[in-house]
Amino acid sequence: MTAINAFYAQSGGATAVINATACGLIEEARRQHLADPTRMGTVYAGRDGILGALREDLIDTGLESDADIARLRQTPGGAFGASRFHLGPLETHRVMYERLAAVLDAHEVGYFFINGGEGSMGAAWHLSQMMREIGRPLKVIGIPKTVDNDMALTDCCPGFGSVAKYIATSVREAGYDVASMSQTSTKVFVLEVMGRHAGWITAAAGLASEAAGEPPHILLFPEVGFDDRKFLARVRQCVETYGYCVVVTAEGLCDAGGCNFGVSSRRAGTVGRYIADMVEVHLGYKQHLAVADYLQRSARHLASKVDVEQAYALGAAALRLAMAGESDVAPILHRLSDMPYRWEIRTAPLADLANVERRLPAEFISADCFHITEACRRYLRPLIVGEDLPPFVDGLPAYVRLKNISLPRHLPPYAI
Amino acid sequence: MTAINAFYAQSGGATAVINATACGLIEEARRQHLADPTRMGTVYAGRDGILGALREDLIDTGLESDADIARLRQTPGGAFGASRFHLGPLETHRVMYERLAAVLDAHEVGYFFINGGEGSMGAAWHLSQMMREIGRPLKVIGIPKTVDNDMALTDCCPGFGSVAKYIATSVREAGYDVASMSQTSTKVFVLEVMGRHAGWITAAAGLASEAAGEPPHILLFPEVGFDDRKFLARVRQCVETYGYCVVVTAEGLCDAGGCNFGVSSRRAGTVGRYIADMVEVHLGYKQHLAVADYLQRSARHLASKVDVEQAYALGAAALRLAMAGESDVAPILHRLSDMPYRWEIRTAPLADLANVERRLPAEFISADCFHITEACRRYLRPLIVGEDLPPFVDGLPAYVRLKNISLPRHLPPYAI
Repeated sequence: MTAINAFYAQSGGATAVINATACGLIEEARRQHLADPTRMGTVYAGRDGILGALREDLIDTGLESDADIARLRQTPGGAFGASRFHLGPLETHRVMYERLAAVLDAHEVGYFFINGGEGSMGAAWHLSQMMREIGRPLKVIGIPKTVDNDMALTDCCPGFGSVAKYIATSVREAGYDVASMSQTSTKVFVLEVMGRHAGWITAAAGLASEAAGEPPHILLFPEVGFDDRKFLARVRQCVETYGYCVVVTAEGLCDAGGCNFGVSSRRAGTVGRYIADMVEVHLGYKQHLAVADYLQRSARHLASKVDVEQAYALGAAALRLAMAGESDVAPILHRLSDMPYRWEIRTAPLADLANVERRLPAEFISADCFHITEACRRYLRPLIVGEDLPPFVDGLPAYVRLKNISLPRHLPPYAI
Repeated sequence: MTAINAFYAQSGGATAVINATACGLIEEARRQHLADPTRMGTVYAGRDGILGALREDLIDTGLESDADIARLRQTPGGAFGASRFHLGPLETHRVMYERLAAVLDAHEVGYFFINGGEGSMGAAWHLSQMMREIGRPLKVIGIPKTVDNDMALTDCCPGFGSVAKYIATSVREAGYDVASMSQTSTKVFVLEVMGRHAGWITAAAGLASEAAGEPPHILLFPEVGFDDRKFLARVRQCVETYGYCVVVTAEGLCDAGGCNFGVSSRRAGTVGRYIADMVEVHLGYKQHLAVADYLQRSARHLASKVDVEQAYALGAAALRLAMAGESDVAPILHRLSDMPYRWEIRTAPLADLANVERRLPAEFISADCFHITEACRRYLRPLIVGEDLPPFVDGLPAYVRLKNISLPRHLPPYAI
């Protein structure tokens, strides 16, 4: 058996830099292939992630030019399509695992990469175990990715640094806007950002404020029980002191009883609207609301250079790990120092990454619960450093659309 | 009388480049002052716009360093504060005009600049007439500014090119994101942009799509009566054809009966939420909503270079017009050619700019009413060309905060 091809799946929500990881992995594979074509063949990407493996819909990245693969580094979204599809238990889904084995055999795939969040690390680990049980072992490597930055063990998650930079920049800019009109118009501006359970993106907004009184004035974290009276008192204090108030809220907020009123609706803007209306109804201040939603995680034009570099490096490292015979692990980022920021890549078992959610630690939240601490700033600052502009053509970023041509199918169709 | 000082007021909502106009005006004034200090004194900025003139709260821009004034060119928001305050008719508000005359006399102001939209041009014209009537004539110059791009006569309005670039970029980026997840998750993405009565910003989103099938697929203009059945049919067609659908809607939409259901609530996100919910309820598609709100008009990090240059040039031109003895006019932009884009500054009477709203012309809207025409693209393309990044420090744009020190008051307080 010459199972020297690689399968690569993007999983879950896209980020501004998940394609930089794909770029790192594919470019490293091409280098390895040139060095020794008997050890590394071609990278096949699953169309719509893991679904592509089950449907035998494998995109032949070998048909893409080097130039187009290089442009992946600068292109947001998931270039091959992503899905959140999870494989069930072996007892009830044996047919599915056998199908997967058949597809991998048909295309001589020996290396299997899943690029996703903590749920995907769990799925990858589970898959590896199941494939071993059915007698078709596989080198399975996870590659971290999530704007939420809520994975364990890794210093940060590719995707987060860029959304952090985008949100901190956006709230700083909007702060200048609100300040100028506050005397006769909007007094309170609310920006809703992503984060159903973890407040990392909300915390990043805090970087925009570097001195007392600078916006954002109030951060609302999912980790802190929302207290409407305390919140309204703080809003009033800000307006009376600074003339206006900028609030950044996570999309998931809990009241003191633990009821998460953002998650239940699963509608972007629900929490932001609730907060903004509360301010107007109770304090009579004119308010405005922005909901960043997908703009924040796709804003490749404002990506963090550090984030892009880490995303790329993890993709390349994942490829090397698999070729070195490793499995059931993921390359992760380890911080060596804050300033100057130095990092290296280490590995962590998928078992330890699987389904563990890292929320904002208490020491990153200020005593009044409305802002971030200096420790949090030390952690966040290096992650947003550096710009990495995509090429612009006629005023707009020029992103690549790959040809995404499927390999010929060898197997009968399979309905999922 | 040596009324050689200038008064400058920012009016209405801020933009990414209104400070570039302030920069142009102040730098030109400094050049003129150096050339002949008997003809041009100092620029005094109204704190909170025209209110500053009534309150005798004049910011002495002479106390700002050349370096800080230069940084205004790259700073969003309104650096001196802006207001929408309108002066009433002379019969009932004579005291107010006399107060204004007293303040201008006390600080030897002979040149009066209002930087705003069509409403502000009307206010400036009115002010000039009233001051003449009470025997205190003044050189009054309007300077166009509005993200809405809805002013008459001028080829475009400073502020619009940057919001156009931001929205077209953002919707292109979000389009890549939505496309990647559409197989198993969000099928319809809605972005709500500014524009209560005019669809210029919505039209600009259309630039992101350069070939059939590229997002955005549907644009909803305030100029077109919203037809829910036609809209839903088109959404379904897009999802069935492309796998997903990206919709950009103006914040103000009218139904066929002319009822503008965005304006009545005056709450950002109302129309977007309505559209997104309609899609989910009637078609069962998972949807997501982003509301750009103030982010779009303050996104200086993604300003259009052309827009910045025009904003600056109009500020400088306004100063020269006043010194040349002109009054009751505004410098406007005149297009000489589309490609290569060439423009020059001309003047228009405030009377012709006052309170005239220019909506999207019918020939800019495609026959099916859901997109823009090639004529519209020819108009829009040059306005977003070129990047003009602000300096970044530690990963974030570094914007200037002026000292904004008020002149000593010479008059008794005046309550407005």
